[in-house]
Amino acid sequence: MADESEASGGGAQNPAASWPERPSTDYGFLERALGDASADAFVHVGDRFDDDMRYLTRFSGPDRDFAFVFVGDTAGGDATSTLCAPALFEAQAKREFPGDEVRMENVDDPAGERARALLDEALGGDGTVLVPQGVPHDAALYLERAGYELRSTSAVDDARAVKTESELDCLRRVQRATARGMARAETILAESTADGDELLWEGGPLSTERLRRQVNVTLAAYGVRDAGNTVIGAGPSCADLHFTGTDGIAPGETVLLDISPRGPHGYYGDLTRTFVVDGDGGWERRAYVAVEAAQNAAFDELDAGAGVAASTVHEEAAAEIAAYGFSVGEEPGFTHGTGHGVGVSLHEAPSLRADAPLEAGMVVTVEPGVYDSSQGGVRIEDLVVVTEDGYEVLAAYPTGIVPQER
Amino acid sequence: MADESEASGGGAQNPAASWPERPSTDYGFLERALGDASADAFVHVGDRFDDDMRYLTRFSGPDRDFAFVFVGDTAGGDATSTLCAPALFEAQAKREFPGDEVRMENVDDPAGERARALLDEALGGDGTVLVPQGVPHDAALYLERAGYELRSTSAVDDARAVKTESELDCLRRVQRATARGMARAETILAESTADGDELLWEGGPLSTERLRRQVNVTLAAYGVRDAGNTVIGAGPSCADLHFTGTDGIAPGETVLLDISPRGPHGYYGDLTRTFVVDGDGGWERRAYVAVEAAQNAAFDELDAGAGVAASTVHEEAAAEIAAYGFSVGEEPGFTHGTGHGVGVSLHEAPSLRADAPLEAGMVVTVEPGVYDSSQGGVRIEDLVVVTEDGYEVLAAYPTGIVPQER
Repeated sequence: MADESEASGGGAQNPAASWPERPSTDYGFLERALGDASADAFVHVGDRFDDDMRYLTRFSGPDRDFAFVFVGDTAGGDATSTLCAPALFEAQAKREFPGDEVRMENVDDPAGERARALLDEALGGDGTVLVPQGVPHDAALYLERAGYELRSTSAVDDARAVKTESELDCLRRVQRATARGMARAETILAESTADGDELLWEGGPLSTERLRRQVNVTLAAYGVRDAGNTVIGAGPSCADLHFTGTDGIAPGETVLLDISPRGPHGYYGDLTRTFVVDGDGGWERRAYVAVEAAQNAAFDELDAGAGVAASTVHEEAAAEIAAYGFSVGEEPGFTHGTGHGVGVSLHEAPSLRADAPLEAGMVVTVEPGVYDSSQGGVRIEDLVVVTEDGYEVLAAYPTGIVPQER
Repeated sequence: MADESEASGGGAQNPAASWPERPSTDYGFLERALGDASADAFVHVGDRFDDDMRYLTRFSGPDRDFAFVFVGDTAGGDATSTLCAPALFEAQAKREFPGDEVRMENVDDPAGERARALLDEALGGDGTVLVPQGVPHDAALYLERAGYELRSTSAVDDARAVKTESELDCLRRVQRATARGMARAETILAESTADGDELLWEGGPLSTERLRRQVNVTLAAYGVRDAGNTVIGAGPSCADLHFTGTDGIAPGETVLLDISPRGPHGYYGDLTRTFVVDGDGGWERRAYVAVEAAQNAAFDELDAGAGVAASTVHEEAAAEIAAYGFSVGEEPGFTHGTGHGVGVSLHEAPSLRADAPLEAGMVVTVEPGVYDSSQGGVRIEDLVVVTEDGYEVLAAYPTGIVPQER
């Protein structure tokens, strides 16, 4: 693998040369959704933190609302996609938006009002408009008061679930960086030594916060950012599934690292490993064996490729956990689902609890785990893309409960 | 200043010892808002990226919607604040939420529906409910269809604008880390040498992306994260106010760094400096002198402390820019406002364009700049808290167009 970092400076390389191209968005799914619903347009409003907006516009915009308007060809002419960009963001909007037009007029109006004005140009105050169900209430009111009938659609969720090659390039790139962050943490754990009830590293006690900073430094060196998702638990806090606090790390307890940085063009990585330094081969070994077997059982289902019901993957993993004597659905045991989609959101469709079949191009985590608040927690997670005849792990990373220098 | 980093490992310190306490939220402002509007309750729904939810609940939650419900004492008993937390987040919600109760029932229902059920317990399907104007449309519909009358309120924006001592501690802490990131960038620029039309650092050409990674590595070492806001422009891209792309950096051109990481408990820092390596003392020197004078003019207004009209600060800065022969409101010149509030959002109230007087405890940026797409851009920005009789710079950082090793 090419080294895409520049952690401590040296080297004449241009790190950005490794960035994949910004993915585009094919609005064909919106044309089909309008056709299916006999609707005239689609509108969404949101800020840079709204991932539907990121997908629809590819615009990494401001923390104020902006608007996306798609008018179907039912109105006479060709379908048109428009971004109502905020003041001061014109150059960036034009650089990033793959649609037809960036509009800058009425920049002081609320985004919903700007969307309304655009609809009026095309539809004259009459028609049916699809919106995501979480569109801001004030934006919905601007459209309704102008005479449009709103209907909610899940078309954006559905489209986002299946990735293009260009999106997969972004996901592979961020997942490789995620693996580098994991390697840093695993190496630190391998270098650590037991001292009474503390783990020492480079002369000081190792804590979850100290380890997290080291991981995040590595992520930053590879051009991705931790996005507040570098979850590291130690012992009991592993059972607290989203622990980002500060705990000392003791010898013999599970250290669970769930690293989910955000990378080029807004795509997330997601990788979990669990290690024990100086373990006594008790609870955590049994848990590790069960979780590894459950992940393999899930992979076996994915081997069947497209056409497998998503829920089958979860059910097989859960059955394996149960076969090892752990509970499913409650502690001590497997307290969550086996996986979720990953894209411009860390959690998106499909869920591996869904009945619908997996499709080629869907990217999902495979992450069984078992937890016991009095002992600790073990989870192993990889990110895969479903293919026509199986699956591809986006960035392979070794498993093993005893940390190695990587 | 205590060194709060652990960039390359060493040292027995516990970096997290320097984290300030998680701020609480005093819901008195909601009681007053309910009283003023003769309303019975306040509801908001949002995910971890909704900063009103972060302020209201202090819960760093999931990327799925959760709900906050505040029922006033008009319903008979005491006012109560409740967080409807998502499945799998119970421990975290209870750790973080400063209100009365975390409720876990009906976790599979949409957050708006869970809020509705809570209101029904207290109000029995009848009453007036205040919501922020951007509440998700589906949540608003759950409440309206159950019989509640919704009215929008700006009470949360207003409350957020004035910081408590505990919030100021978070802002000071993240701004100190921001200054360390700036020092890293300035040092790299000071170490760089001109080679034809390239700037070289440690044997390779320096680009905005390469410099950004170094800044972000430093931020991570200090326990804060870049949050996608490490804006670095070089020459023409400085005029593109939110440039996060990759440009080579040439000798003699302006390098504008606007660093805005997110730190402990969700608070942002914000610091901008502009440097030129091997400048010829032309456009950029004139621009720098004008911008520095404008910032000083703004500070002179802030010397009065609480009570000064926010817009006066902007007007004085703009007048100074104009006095140096640059335009205001268009290029080449000062194309944006002088500042904005900073808290759990990078941009929040108050704007320095507002007519209302500044109040003690408001935290604002002071950031005049001038831009010329054919030349470059110069901006200098500091973060200050308004006090009764003046202001305090949250973390002082030197100015100067020629980079120094820091």
